[in-house]
Amino acid sequence: MTDMEQDSDPVTAALVIIGEEILSGRTTDANTTYIAAYLTRAGIALREIRVVPDLEAEIVAAVNTLRPRFSYVFTTGGIGPTHDDVTTDAIAKAFEVAVVVDPDAVAAMRTHYAEDELTPARLRMARIPQGAALIDNPISRAPGFMLENVIVMAGVPRIMQVMLDAVAPRLRTGRPMLTRSVRIDVAEGDVAPGLAALQASHPEVQIGSYPFFEQRRLGTFAVLRSVDPAKLEQALAGLWEVIHTEGFSAVAAEPD
Amino acid sequence: MTDMEQDSDPVTAALVIIGEEILSGRTTDANTTYIAAYLTRAGIALREIRVVPDLEAEIVAAVNTLRPRFSYVFTTGGIGPTHDDVTTDAIAKAFEVAVVVDPDAVAAMRTHYAEDELTPARLRMARIPQGAALIDNPISRAPGFMLENVIVMAGVPRIMQVMLDAVAPRLRTGRPMLTRSVRIDVAEGDVAPGLAALQASHPEVQIGSYPFFEQRRLGTFAVLRSVDPAKLEQALAGLWEVIHTEGFSAVAAEPD
Repeated sequence: MTDMEQDSDPVTAALVIIGEEILSGRTTDANTTYIAAYLTRAGIALREIRVVPDLEAEIVAAVNTLRPRFSYVFTTGGIGPTHDDVTTDAIAKAFEVAVVVDPDAVAAMRTHYAEDELTPARLRMARIPQGAALIDNPISRAPGFMLENVIVMAGVPRIMQVMLDAVAPRLRTGRPMLTRSVRIDVAEGDVAPGLAALQASHPEVQIGSYPFFEQRRLGTFAVLRSVDPAKLEQALAGLWEVIHTEGFSAVAAEPD
Repeated sequence: MTDMEQDSDPVTAALVIIGEEILSGRTTDANTTYIAAYLTRAGIALREIRVVPDLEAEIVAAVNTLRPRFSYVFTTGGIGPTHDDVTTDAIAKAFEVAVVVDPDAVAAMRTHYAEDELTPARLRMARIPQGAALIDNPISRAPGFMLENVIVMAGVPRIMQVMLDAVAPRLRTGRPMLTRSVRIDVAEGDVAPGLAALQASHPEVQIGSYPFFEQRRLGTFAVLRSVDPAKLEQALAGLWEVIHTEGFSAVAAEPD
């Protein structure tokens, strides 16, 4: 734990991924890395992710545990037209509000679907918890929504991505987390003492160590993270000093 | 929620992924799908996944919330040699036991590391919560461990995988979840009423609907899951009847 979270008013988030298909191993989640990187760039610190099945009680429990703890809770999945799409009802239940057919959602869907395509199943996607603000979906028009600090998005990656773009301007953002990475061509165990000393002398920079194995050789990515550019550069200089003193082979790596 | 969980003594699991690098978007988690599919095949139902940062308090909270709720809790990450590897201490704290240098772990590591490589940093990997059973790591020898129903594994995928193989024979397993998938070449909204009726008439089979978009056309994978082969085949026959009645184009899909 670094001191950076005591910085002025950090903006934090949790992500709830709703989908039996992830838990069964059928589908590899394609949204987490995109959302994590998107929020990190925006200065919103993603602090926890949960994957839960398409069961109302599980969704309610996760959302109600997380929404008082973080600035925002994002959800993906479970807002489609089929019987296993239970997220909207779960969010309404979590907030103890009714679900209503939203006229703006219906109007948006009319621009995409012909009248005879607006079946009862599809109109399920216009059901929105009372009091929620719609999140536009320029691709297929069935909207996401935001209720207090909970942001409900589709699970289909390209639709989730346009919803994230649509809602982002409404969100409070903090100082963006800055990152510097260095690839060091020695095993983690060899760089460990130097990194531990560096972390001790730079408590406001978070220092991560990630081993890799390439062409039969072990190496380590050292990743420094801070919202403070000056402290980040000081820690980076300290890292290069460790590398030089120890005689390690190393190279600055692409920022992520 | 289907009735299948009231079947004789289901075996359940949660997975805790420990890693700031997932939350920041730097790294795409490579273990979830592997573990989910592995457990599903073994008849262990993965019911929840959490991703938490490398912070002792967060790990303790996740593990202590999950271990009374599920047959097993698996963790990945945070058992390496560097200062940001805090999982072992967190697990010991969760169980209120001491951490000890385990002689068997040291002996295993001696078979891999030369004496001068067994630095204090690397010997951190022989620190094990008191009372835990070691999980062998044939690749780099630093072991994982199992304490009561909590199974602690490395985050590096190829090492996690050999640890999972090593611990699997010690685990209680249930009836394996069986799956049948059918690819239907119509949009989810069109197949929704038929799937809802099918789910209502086959409550012991879990029916999932997953949209896809291919060559500019929408389609739907219907996925049926059950531990009961006869009920699964009955539901599958029902699905084909729906498809035939509606005149949909469809084909059996690869099992996942």
